[in-house]
Amino acid sequence: MIKAVFHIDEPSKWNLLLNNAQNLVSELDPASRQIAVVANSEAVAFYTAPDSGADGGRMSRLAAEGVQFLACGNALRGMGIAAEKLPRFVRVVPAGVLELAEKQSQGYAYIKP
Amino acid sequence: MIKAVFHIDEPSKWNLLLNNAQNLVSELDPASRQIAVVANSEAVAFYTAPDSGADGGRMSRLAAEGVQFLACGNALRGMGIAAEKLPRFVRVVPAGVLELAEKQSQGYAYIKP
Amino acid sequence: MIKAVFHIDEPSKWNLLLNNAQNLVSELDPASRQIAVVANSEAVAFYTAPDSGADGGRMSRLAAEGVQFLACGNALRGMGIAAEKLPRFVRVVPAGVLELAEKQSQGYAYIKP
Repeated sequence: MIKAVFHIDEPSKWNLLLNNAQNLVSELDPASRQIAVVANSEAVAFYTAPDSGADGGRMSRLAAEGVQFLACGNALRGMGIAAEKLPRFVRVVPAGVLELAEKQSQGYAYIKP
Repeated sequence: MIKAVFHIDEPSKWNLLLNNAQNLVSELDPASRQIAVVANSEAVAFYTAPDSGADGGRMSRLAAEGVQFLACGNALRGMGIAAEKLPRFVRVVPAGVLELAEKQSQGYAYIKP
Repeated sequence: MIKAVFHIDEPSKWNLLLNNAQNLVSELDPASRQIAVVANSEAVAFYTAPDSGADGGRMSRLAAEGVQFLACGNALRGMGIAAEKLPRFVRVVPAGVLELAEKQSQGYAYIKP
């Protein structure tokens, strides 16, 4: 079982992150991987951007493949983004950094594109 | 117990790093967390900057909350910064990268803002 | 035993990464360290750059000290770089992100300069 959590806080890194996540998904069958993406700071805004691919694009296809997309609640508040504006497959966590620490304590590898 | 080490080598990331550390501190009571910050490369200079918050500001408040602030000795030498110029709560380690590796081998999660 | 994997995806970070790797090598004798460098995305191109130090420079000296240099096969294909163009000490892995996850599951610390 491969477990990996991708961290993103810079909006400009989303394309690279989605490429990275796709590469990992392509190498592993669904039963042998647990992949999560934690977005905090300004990177959370991309979840609501029209070109994010959240609607039918790459991001939603990865979600359909089992990739967990998480958003930092602190960052959403700081950016004034209501949770209802997020794609359905995005889960809000209280603090992105806590999620990153907990995931690693559960054996997830950390990857920051 | 949550253990996390933040890594910073770019001076421009200090504000984000201190926000991240504050978010983690806010989520956890002191007995259930061990948080460290390892600064290397050019990021060590911020420890001596007037606007660093080291004197009565955010950084010293986080230190009072138990956050460990560490500076890479190699980087200090490279930048010509004497250890005596650092705030009292900053501890110098021989090599930041070694500290990052050792902390992770002790179960610390790695987070790079 | 200290095990650390350095991740690089931005070409501009190579100098810092090689400094970091050298610092770690300097602190540890060969029998007590396993150090790897995983390059993916645009960072793989540096392996073939004339000023990379791959030929007799810092990179090849680190390789001689036992540092493993790895290149993401997906990134090489994406950049149109043939594996034969790489220095002899660089090993191609199918996917850099998978290698990063596997190395961490084997106890390697993750460091992103």
